[in-house]
Amino acid sequence: MRALVDRVRAEGRNLGGGILKVDSFINHQLDPQLCREMGEAFADGFAAAGVTGVTKVITAEVSGIAPALMTGLALNVPVIYARKTRPITMPAGAYRAEAPSHTKGGIVELNVSPEYLEAADRVLLIDDFLASGKTLGAMVELIQTCGATLCGIGCVIEKSFEGGRERLAGLGVPIITLAVIDSMEGNKIVVRD
Amino acid sequence: MRALVDRVRAEGRNLGGGILKVDSFINHQLDPQLCREMGEAFADGFAAAGVTGVTKVITAEVSGIAPALMTGLALNVPVIYARKTRPITMPAGAYRAEAPSHTKGGIVELNVSPEYLEAADRVLLIDDFLASGKTLGAMVELIQTCGATLCGIGCVIEKSFEGGRERLAGLGVPIITLAVIDSMEGNKIVVRD
Repeated sequence: MRALVDRVRAEGRNLGGGILKVDSFINHQLDPQLCREMGEAFADGFAAAGVTGVTKVITAEVSGIAPALMTGLALNVPVIYARKTRPITMPAGAYRAEAPSHTKGGIVELNVSPEYLEAADRVLLIDDFLASGKTLGAMVELIQTCGATLCGIGCVIEKSFEGGRERLAGLGVPIITLAVIDSMEGNKIVVRD
Repeated sequence: MRALVDRVRAEGRNLGGGILKVDSFINHQLDPQLCREMGEAFADGFAAAGVTGVTKVITAEVSGIAPALMTGLALNVPVIYARKTRPITMPAGAYRAEAPSHTKGGIVELNVSPEYLEAADRVLLIDDFLASGKTLGAMVELIQTCGATLCGIGCVIEKSFEGGRERLAGLGVPIITLAVIDSMEGNKIVVRD
């Protein structure tokens, strides 16, 4: 996605340790128009990949919410965001998975209520980053636990050198990313054309 | 906002202790089209209240992100979400405030980077709930600390019996809410027409 690639090149910062800072348009400040274009790009991309009949978009709070919401808007389906802390409004029998946190350290929980994700659902999984694929893997586990069908995985930015795409390839679903970073060394962030 | 009032009446649940569960369309699952309408309702409402020249929308993660993003889309301005944990991508000199958490207990931090909120900014503060107004008050403190101008406060659902509107009235800015709950007793949730 041209506008996103340009934005990563202009504003992305390598903080070292594999951390890409994109706080100015994804992780702290959002560009709503750019987010809408991301949602449309995912909807178009999955349609072109032959994905049909999607009933839900799912993501993990926090940074996945904006692209997931805009994907849901483009597809006209509800969006679920997995909660990292089970709020008191969520019933005790929630689906739960765990993943290591890349930017915060430790383990994060992912909780989804069975009220909103059902075996009949056909689900797109959307998140901000495809890096190691571990958080996405935990989300896939949640989707599978409830018996729903995973139809595709979409991430805003892919760090191709962290192996996430390879880790998730066995799922046999389309994996669509909107900007691919092939390397980050010092001040040089190489974003694929 | 008619569609929202209807939705609260149909799907809102009183969990006791002042907790309204609206997980099916705000706090866990989102209805993207309804969220877009909320954003447009805030944009229209503040324009009708004479608010002009807004440069940023600000909210607190997590549940404020969806309505804030859609408000930013309607106004074509960036959206900032205060982070409850300071991520490693945020500089150490971030603005910080604290508020009590209604649904999770304890104290939550709110962190905003000075990179994205400046003294010249004219800000709309958007969140999911206007209840006691304490989280909003902490957000106002953040906005004031950085010298920006607060232009208005918009919340999706107001619980009129928790005093938040009165607590924030002294700020002298328009406070717009899209559905007002006047009482919650047992199974009876009274939503204002």
